Amino acid sequence: MNAAEKREQTDLQWLTGAIEAAAQTGLRPDGEYWRATYTKEDNKVVDLLRQYMTEAGMEVYSDAVGNLFGRFPGESEEVILVGSHRDTVRQGGRYDGILGVLTAIRAAASLHAELGRPQKTLEVVATCEEESSRFLTSYLGSHHICGDLQEESLKDMDKNGISLKEAMQASGYLKEPLSRGRQDIDHFVELHIEQGGVLEHEKKQIGIVTSIVGLLCTEIRFFGHQNHAGTTPMALRKDPVPTAAAYISRLFDWARQYMDDTVCTIGQLRTLPGSANVIPESVTISIDIRSARAERLSEAQQVLQQLKKELEESIDIQIAPIECEQPVLLDEEGVRTLTALAQAAGMSYQVMPSGAGHDSQVIGLKYKTNMIFVPSVEGISHNPKEYTKPEDLNAGMKLLRAYIKKLAWQG
Amino acid sequence: MNAAEKREQTDLQWLTGAIEAAAQTGLRPDGEYWRATYTKEDNKVVDLLRQYMTEAGMEVYSDAVGNLFGRFPGESEEVILVGSHRDTVRQGGRYDGILGVLTAIRAAASLHAELGRPQKTLEVVATCEEESSRFLTSYLGSHHICGDLQEESLKDMDKNGISLKEAMQASGYLKEPLSRGRQDIDHFVELHIEQGGVLEHEKKQIGIVTSIVGLLCTEIRFFGHQNHAGTTPMALRKDPVPTAAAYISRLFDWARQYMDDTVCTIGQLRTLPGSANVIPESVTISIDIRSARAERLSEAQQVLQQLKKELEESIDIQIAPIECEQPVLLDEEGVRTLTALAQAAGMSYQVMPSGAGHDSQVIGLKYKTNMIFVPSVEGISHNPKEYTKPEDLNAGMKLLRAYIKKLAWQG
Repeated sequence: MNAAEKREQTDLQWLTGAIEAAAQTGLRPDGEYWRATYTKEDNKVVDLLRQYMTEAGMEVYSDAVGNLFGRFPGESEEVILVGSHRDTVRQGGRYDGILGVLTAIRAAASLHAELGRPQKTLEVVATCEEESSRFLTSYLGSHHICGDLQEESLKDMDKNGISLKEAMQASGYLKEPLSRGRQDIDHFVELHIEQGGVLEHEKKQIGIVTSIVGLLCTEIRFFGHQNHAGTTPMALRKDPVPTAAAYISRLFDWARQYMDDTVCTIGQLRTLPGSANVIPESVTISIDIRSARAERLSEAQQVLQQLKKELEESIDIQIAPIECEQPVLLDEEGVRTLTALAQAAGMSYQVMPSGAGHDSQVIGLKYKTNMIFVPSVEGISHNPKEYTKPEDLNAGMKLLRAYIKKLAWQG
Repeated sequence: MNAAEKREQTDLQWLTGAIEAAAQTGLRPDGEYWRATYTKEDNKVVDLLRQYMTEAGMEVYSDAVGNLFGRFPGESEEVILVGSHRDTVRQGGRYDGILGVLTAIRAAASLHAELGRPQKTLEVVATCEEESSRFLTSYLGSHHICGDLQEESLKDMDKNGISLKEAMQASGYLKEPLSRGRQDIDHFVELHIEQGGVLEHEKKQIGIVTSIVGLLCTEIRFFGHQNHAGTTPMALRKDPVPTAAAYISRLFDWARQYMDDTVCTIGQLRTLPGSANVIPESVTISIDIRSARAERLSEAQQVLQQLKKELEESIDIQIAPIECEQPVLLDEEGVRTLTALAQAAGMSYQVMPSGAGHDSQVIGLKYKTNMIFVPSVEGISHNPKEYTKPEDLNAGMKLLRAYIKKLAWQG
C-alpha cells in the first residue's frame, strides 16, 4: 500500500465514522429520523461540523441565516466553495445532503494538510433548509448566499405557527442583515448521492452532472356532475373519469416520444367524493414533468393546453397555475475537467443530468457550479434505507479531492 | 271538487304532514339527520308509525327483528304486503324509504275506510336496516321476512362494537326465534323515490319498475414500483398510472356499447403513496357495473379478465374477488296492471328498471313483487336535499291505492 492509498484508507475511515456521528444528530426523541433546520437536531449537527472544521484548522463562521462555513484562506480572495446541505426530510436518510458536507470537509482538510495554503481561498459550506421539510421556502441557504432571499420569506410559518424569522433567532442567527449576495465566489462544487437508480443500473461509480433538470408542475381538475352510480343512465351522466383517463393516456403518449431526456409523473389521482357507488363530481391529477431541455418544458405547457382543448366537451377541465423552473446548466469546462480526472483515476463514470433539485440549481444560476454524484443503492433516497457503498464513497471523495486540488491549488 | 278529489286532497295533506313528523324523528341531538336501525331515532319513528297504524284501525305487531306491521285482516289469510324501509343513511333525506311506509299506511287506511274488510289480508310494513348504515348486513328486515337471515349475521358489530343482537335486544326485539320465512305472503308492493334523474328528465310522474338491476362490484389494483419522479428515467420505471388509464378507457369503451341497459362507474381512484413527485407504487380503482340483463354482467366479468390479460405487461394487475348480484325481475303481470291503472288515471309514466337496490330485490326473489317510483327532484337522494313534489306524491299515492285495491279487494 503506497502513501496515497493509505491516505485514501484513512479518509474513508474518517468519512464512515463521520456519517455515523452525523446520523446520530438526526435521531429525534420520538424515534423519527428528521433533521429539520433550526431545531435541536440541527444545532447538534452544527456543533459536530464546527468541531470537524476546527480540528482541520479551518476558520469557522456562520452567515446571517445560519449557513456554516469552514475557511482555508488562500493567496487570493476568490473562493472555491464546496459542500451541500445539512438538513434532511422527515424520515429521511443519512447520506442526502450531509455526505456532500462531510466529503468536502475531509477532502479540504486532507489537501490542506498535504499542500498547505491554497492558491484560491477554499471554503466548505453546510447550507440550511434545502429540503423545505419544515418551512415552505426551499434552498434557503443557497438563496441567501446568492443574495436573493427576500425578507418576506422570513414570515413563512411551520406547522406549529413558528415563523422562519423566530426559528432563526431561536437558534442564534439573524444578528446581521441578510446577504446581498456574495461577490467572492469563483466556483461551487457539490457532491451528492444520485437519489436514483441510473448509476447502479449502468454499473457506474460516479455521475458527472451536466445540468439540473427543469420542472413543470401543476394540477388538473376534471369537473363532472356527482350522481348515483345505479340510478343515472350513461346518457344522463357527466362522468369526469373517462375524460381524465383519456387525458392521462395522451399525455404519456406525448412524454414517451422523449424518453431519453424527459420524464412525466402523475403521482396523485383523486376522485371526489370518492365512493365506489357515486359518479365523481371531480377527478384531480397532479402533473410533474421534468426535462434537461427548456424547449421540452415549453412544449409540455402547450400539450397540456392542447389536450384540454381537445378533450373538454361535457367535462370542464381546469389547469391550475403552471409552475415552471427552467433547467440549470452546470459549468461545461468543469464537466470536461471532472471527466478527465475520472478517466485518469480509472473510475467508471456517467455524464448525466440530475433529475432531482439541489443547492447547485440555485447557486449554479449565479456562480460556476459542478456536481458529482455517487450511487444510491436501489435508487432509494428520502428514506432511512438510503445507502451508498464504501467503495463508491471512496471514489466520490477521491474525485472531489482531485477537483478541489485543481480548482484551489492549481487554478 | 268531487268526492274522490276531496279524498285525494285529504290524503295528500295527511301525507305531507306525516313526512314532516317522520323527519323530526331522524334529527339527532348532534344536528345530523340519520335514522339508523335500533337507535333512539328508530324507536321514535316506530312509535309514530304505530300511532298512525292504530289510528287507522290496524292490528299492530313487530316480528323478531323489529319489522313493524299494521294489519287489516281479510276474508283470506293470503297477505298483500305493502311498504318500505324506515331507516336512512347518515345525512340522508326525508323521503328515501319512509315515503313507501307512509303512503302504504294512508292508502290502506283510506281504502279500508271506504271499502271495509278486504278480500285478502292487507299488511303494511316498515322494514328495518335496509341501508346498511349502521351494520354491515343490509336488507335485514326483508331477509328476515323471507326467512333467509342467518343467526351468524347477528354477530355483526357497529363502529362502537355493539353487536346486531345486542342492539336488537336493547330495542326490545329478538324475544322469539328468527322467522323461517313467511308462508302467507301473496304479493309485495313498494313505493319509493326514484333516486335518479330519469323521470325528471323524461317529465314523467310515475316509474313502473320492471326489475332491480344486477350489480357487479370489485376493485382492481395496478402494481408498479415506487420511485422518485425526477431521478428515474422513463425506461427504468414501472409506472402503474398509464396502464390504469388504458384499462379505464377500454372498460368505458366496452360499457358505452350498451348505454341503454348497462352503467359503469369508477367512483374511486387512489394512488399510493400519493405524492406528486413520487411514481406510485400502486393505483387502485373501484368497479361498479350494473345491468338489468344477467348476460351483460357475465360479459363484464369476462371483459375485466380480458383487459387484465391484454394490459398486464410490466405492471401486475390484480382483480379483487368479484361480487355479483343478479338482476331481479319483478312481477310481469303486476307491471301490466300498473301500466293499465296509470293509463286509466291519465298519469304520465315510464316503464323502467331500478338502478338502486331496494327491499323489493330481496323479497322479489321469493314473492311476487312490484315497485312504483316517484320522481326525485334533480335525482338527488341520500342527502338532506331529497325532495319530491306534492303533485308527484299525489300521483304515486293514487296509483299505489288503485293497485292495492285491485290486489286486496278485487284479487
